[in-house]
Amino acid sequence: MSDLTFTLRPIGVVQTPYQDIQNMPIQPKGAAGVRGKLVVHPEYMEGLVDLDGFSHIYLIYLFHQVREMQLTVTPFLDKASHGVFATRAPKRPNPIGLSAVRLIKMTDNVLELENVDMLDGTPILDIKPYVPAFDEQEDVRVGWLEKNGDKVRTKRSDKRFG
Amino acid sequence: MSDLTFTLRPIGVVQTPYQDIQNMPIQPKGAAGVRGKLVVHPEYMEGLVDLDGFSHIYLIYLFHQVREMQLTVTPFLDKASHGVFATRAPKRPNPIGLSAVRLIKMTDNVLELENVDMLDGTPILDIKPYVPAFDEQEDVRVGWLEKNGDKVRTKRSDKRFG
Repeated sequence: MSDLTFTLRPIGVVQTPYQDIQNMPIQPKGAAGVRGKLVVHPEYMEGLVDLDGFSHIYLIYLFHQVREMQLTVTPFLDKASHGVFATRAPKRPNPIGLSAVRLIKMTDNVLELENVDMLDGTPILDIKPYVPAFDEQEDVRVGWLEKNGDKVRTKRSDKRFG
Repeated sequence: MSDLTFTLRPIGVVQTPYQDIQNMPIQPKGAAGVRGKLVVHPEYMEGLVDLDGFSHIYLIYLFHQVREMQLTVTPFLDKASHGVFATRAPKRPNPIGLSAVRLIKMTDNVLELENVDMLDGTPILDIKPYVPAFDEQEDVRVGWLEKNGDKVRTKRSDKRFG
């Protein structure tokens, strides 16, 4: 079963101010107000109809500069190491990222975004509407992030996952 | 750029009560209390360390029974059609699903889950901790779902995306 593989093709690419993995925001909450653009390949434009009714969208994307996985990581928000699935670090078995960003405006196949925390040129696999009635959870515990989760607004990346 | 493809390999498989795409819950909120198991391939077990501190996890997975995409869909929660990216329907250009589920218990490489809305046998690509400080948004507008979003708790699937 581990040998079953699937091939995915990006539906578009984001343009952001971040050319380098160092000194980046580490989540959209650390990128408040940072603008970017998602240019969707024109062949998928029909799939965008009515997306502009939503203020926030999930982007599912590839950490395209990641070349290896690391099952144990010391994330930016802690000094201790954790299993990679207990973190949002990029060197994952499948290097897939998830960010909820603000959709400011949509013109044809170009989405103007805010709160972008991705590298410039990141290939996007999917867009989904963010819907609190679907997505927000109650009675949440956040393990090792209890102490440090709020630092996400100010903490920056370094080279460790390059 | 559209021709660039990426190959991903599942990290595990979920076991759920749903053998058929008909009469399924259409989101985790419609699957409240429904139990399932995620069996992670043993080679990735080290990546699970400390995940059990989190009450909720995102699963990113493949809609493995989807064989084609559909750029315009009429979703279960509406009578009108919308672009597929403005919905959570499965026939997407990249058939990737996203569900936040409750993590009840973790024993070695087996995760006991609640609120599972996936088909039995769904291949899992990634697990990420759900962290309100990262993931919850403010001042949210939900477009065509303003009217019908709450029906997600009771509405069931039919055959339309089979």
